Amino acid sequence: MTYCVGVLLNDGIVLLSDTRTNAGFDNIASYKKMFVFEAPGERVIALMTAGSLSVTQTVIARLRDAIDDPDQTETPSIMKAATMLEVAQIVGDTLSRVTAEVSEKLERMKQGATASMILAGQRKGGGPRMFLIYPEGNFIEATEDTPFLQIGEHKYGKPILDRVVRKDMPIDDARKALLLSMDSTLRSNLSVGMPLDLTVLRKDELKVSETHRFEPGDPGFSAMSDAWSRTLREGFSRIEI
Amino acid sequence: MTYCVGVLLNDGIVLLSDTRTNAGFDNIASYKKMFVFEAPGERVIALMTAGSLSVTQTVIARLRDAIDDPDQTETPSIMKAATMLEVAQIVGDTLSRVTAEVSEKLERMKQGATASMILAGQRKGGGPRMFLIYPEGNFIEATEDTPFLQIGEHKYGKPILDRVVRKDMPIDDARKALLLSMDSTLRSNLSVGMPLDLTVLRKDELKVSETHRFEPGDPGFSAMSDAWSRTLREGFSRIEI
Repeated sequence: MTYCVGVLLNDGIVLLSDTRTNAGFDNIASYKKMFVFEAPGERVIALMTAGSLSVTQTVIARLRDAIDDPDQTETPSIMKAATMLEVAQIVGDTLSRVTAEVSEKLERMKQGATASMILAGQRKGGGPRMFLIYPEGNFIEATEDTPFLQIGEHKYGKPILDRVVRKDMPIDDARKALLLSMDSTLRSNLSVGMPLDLTVLRKDELKVSETHRFEPGDPGFSAMSDAWSRTLREGFSRIEI
Repeated sequence: MTYCVGVLLNDGIVLLSDTRTNAGFDNIASYKKMFVFEAPGERVIALMTAGSLSVTQTVIARLRDAIDDPDQTETPSIMKAATMLEVAQIVGDTLSRVTAEVSEKLERMKQGATASMILAGQRKGGGPRMFLIYPEGNFIEATEDTPFLQIGEHKYGKPILDRVVRKDMPIDDARKALLLSMDSTLRSNLSVGMPLDLTVLRKDELKVSETHRFEPGDPGFSAMSDAWSRTLREGFSRIEI
């Protein structure tokens, strides 16, 4: 499985994804699930993917092909779309089409393949926006009331987000909240694994402001994880009921 | 949905269940999911249920019928079974049979109905034991390494259990851990709801040692919930990454 989470803030967007992919329990590998498309000063778009690798890789490849040579493909270029909403429509349509093609092949084997995505970005003249794109190609957008979106194994890491995430929190706090949410998921579910990819898009910078890969054993992440465990255990022993 | 969780300790067993039941979003009701069978001094058995109410109610009814009049039913009495393992087999067989009967009716409507259960208890001459019974009727048992079992919406409340629950913790700490696990689930998932039913079976008492219903707005539970939120928020603001 996978866990990807993004949060839309007044100051920008923070995105975090794991890299574990498995086909059954004995075929485990690492694949990047964070993809960035950038025309600095003009627009920046990030995509995180969960689900069947055969679907997500094909979607990303078609989006890239369309950017490289918009006249040769039926997919429009997401770097030319007028708004982020139009980008979401292009990604949703591509996802829906690829899912249908792959599923047609798999149906003969009585199997299916689906994927979902988190799309985030900003174009010149617009604000930062973030969307969750469902396997069917339709999508919802992050708002003031629901500033975070999750795909994959989202339940383990939701309680901490429910408690601390707000649209007006600083980027560094959101970064920490996403890392703690991921930490809870890593501990409780074997199918989500390091390394982690973090991407920050600060508002109006129109480029990737920060990107970081946390490798297994990353000292900063490990220290945070240990400190959080201590906080929970000490808090637990103090609580009365 | 539902969330039920139990923990097997050196000192006994603690069980906690919610009461929310829904058929779709507009047909929400409260049903007890904690059932106790007791012959004080001889044996005590507790069952928590998750899944289709039509299945779980029929299973409980058949188990009761068999206790009341063991000669008149094909189900053996769980109050007469030689061991807790045999009790698990009786419950598993009954669940499997009822699921098959209900599913046969529902198949015509292209629907299915399943349920799972947590069975816990102690008989005179044996130790406290706890089992998770799957919809198919097979089961697993709680052990030293895995002292807690969950059914229903189990993911939201798993991270806190993974961090603090140990078989050698005192009953009061386990009680607190289960209530905090439930609290995280209640906050993150609308389909799990108050009131809550707590049951404690202290080792070798061979009766229900404690039972408590937490109604919505219970002052103790609310205070614990608020204190835990404060702990998490304060801990969150102190953590550095």
